[in-house]
Amino acid sequence: MKIYHYLWENKEYYGILKEDLLYPLKGSVFESLEAENFGVPIGRVKILPPVVPTKIIGVGVNYRDHAQEMGRTLPEEPLIFLKPPSAIIGHNEAIIFPRMAHRIDYEGELAVIIKKEVHELDETSDIREVILGYTCFNDVTARDLQLKDGQFTRAKSFDTFAPCGPCIATDVDPAHLMIKTFLNGKLKQSASTSQMIFSIPQLIRFISKIMTLYPGDIITTGTPAGVGPMNPGDRVDVQIEGIGTLSNVVLRVR
Amino acid sequence: MKIYHYLWENKEYYGILKEDLLYPLKGSVFESLEAENFGVPIGRVKILPPVVPTKIIGVGVNYRDHAQEMGRTLPEEPLIFLKPPSAIIGHNEAIIFPRMAHRIDYEGELAVIIKKEVHELDETSDIREVILGYTCFNDVTARDLQLKDGQFTRAKSFDTFAPCGPCIATDVDPAHLMIKTFLNGKLKQSASTSQMIFSIPQLIRFISKIMTLYPGDIITTGTPAGVGPMNPGDRVDVQIEGIGTLSNVVLRVR
Repeated sequence: MKIYHYLWENKEYYGILKEDLLYPLKGSVFESLEAENFGVPIGRVKILPPVVPTKIIGVGVNYRDHAQEMGRTLPEEPLIFLKPPSAIIGHNEAIIFPRMAHRIDYEGELAVIIKKEVHELDETSDIREVILGYTCFNDVTARDLQLKDGQFTRAKSFDTFAPCGPCIATDVDPAHLMIKTFLNGKLKQSASTSQMIFSIPQLIRFISKIMTLYPGDIITTGTPAGVGPMNPGDRVDVQIEGIGTLSNVVLRVR
Repeated sequence: MKIYHYLWENKEYYGILKEDLLYPLKGSVFESLEAENFGVPIGRVKILPPVVPTKIIGVGVNYRDHAQEMGRTLPEEPLIFLKPPSAIIGHNEAIIFPRMAHRIDYEGELAVIIKKEVHELDETSDIREVILGYTCFNDVTARDLQLKDGQFTRAKSFDTFAPCGPCIATDVDPAHLMIKTFLNGKLKQSASTSQMIFSIPQLIRFISKIMTLYPGDIITTGTPAGVGPMNPGDRVDVQIEGIGTLSNVVLRVR
């Protein structure tokens, strides 16, 4: 099932896509996926970011080939960082090239959207109950500032640096999805999520031992090899099997 | 003026302290500080964290003497990091010693609470309009995990690692306040905020060029020299002139 978050006639909805119609949910997306029986054509709505999270947790170096291209050793434990909710944009919104940065990179990733409040999950807990679904994420990073600061925060926190969407897919197997990133239509990243160092259940259990997760929180699970720079005017597409394509253009604002 | 956020008879209020009575505000704390004319004794309320932020921005190495004790060179620009909102606790709540960590340190700090949505503040903007007030903050840090990860995020993001309060002080001069941290009543940190490397207006302008700030967002401005470990059973007090004392005990949960 694919769930969209969208604006229609100036009101916000969550709805389920069937053919090219969106059927609005009767209640909260975190509680029930029961939908109304009238649909709106998807071409007539404005697609919004899938959620408004209380936090976005990123995972550094979670694909072997990306660790290699960045010259980093494989981590013993997940290396986490945070991006602020203020950085989120949706499908078709523009990534703004900040005045402060000289080089900004795309990083195509599979993101998990949390369904319910959880803390300190143990090995026996059923991780599927914790997950609402999956979406495409672009962990935009000002590479020059990441190298300068050492800490990732500034480089990854600019407004518009967290494109995600276009929808929340509920029925995919996150351990076996092809993820591809295209820059101006040219393939730049291509990997299977089976190449992750830490699996999604491992990541969620680990993070839940640090911080309580809330409905709508996003965990973005790391990028494979092939990261590279984007320039004003470029279009970047993150395409994940069973989810869809997240498209954003890069603009510079004067 | 000192503004408290509190629970009274199971309802949440913001109120102004006069003598030992809290006078509830008529509207939103971000809009007007007009209060009702009946007060409740402060001893009868439960004090809550001053705000529920969309993000908490920390500043590393912002006092010369602390840079020295950590063996770090002085930064050319503010070094920022994020703590998740899930880490916030209020005055008199317990800091939980995480199973994952071996050493956790207090870091007493002056924190700024943002009043309105701002983005890309320039040199001419009046920074006072952006600030609701000031509070005490303890930037609790798992020192062993900070060294292990390199990135600060895990070390600073555990639940309960962002004690703040007890109130929001609106009429202090943040450039000249004594800040003191006590461990079990013994003075451990003592400095004037005049020793900051980057002033509060500089920090807010810098951060606003990275990310949009929202009402209630917290910027904690760095810790002076004298950081050190806390153990289960310890009490830590962060005392700032003109604001008050933030007290928390450390517990281990099995």
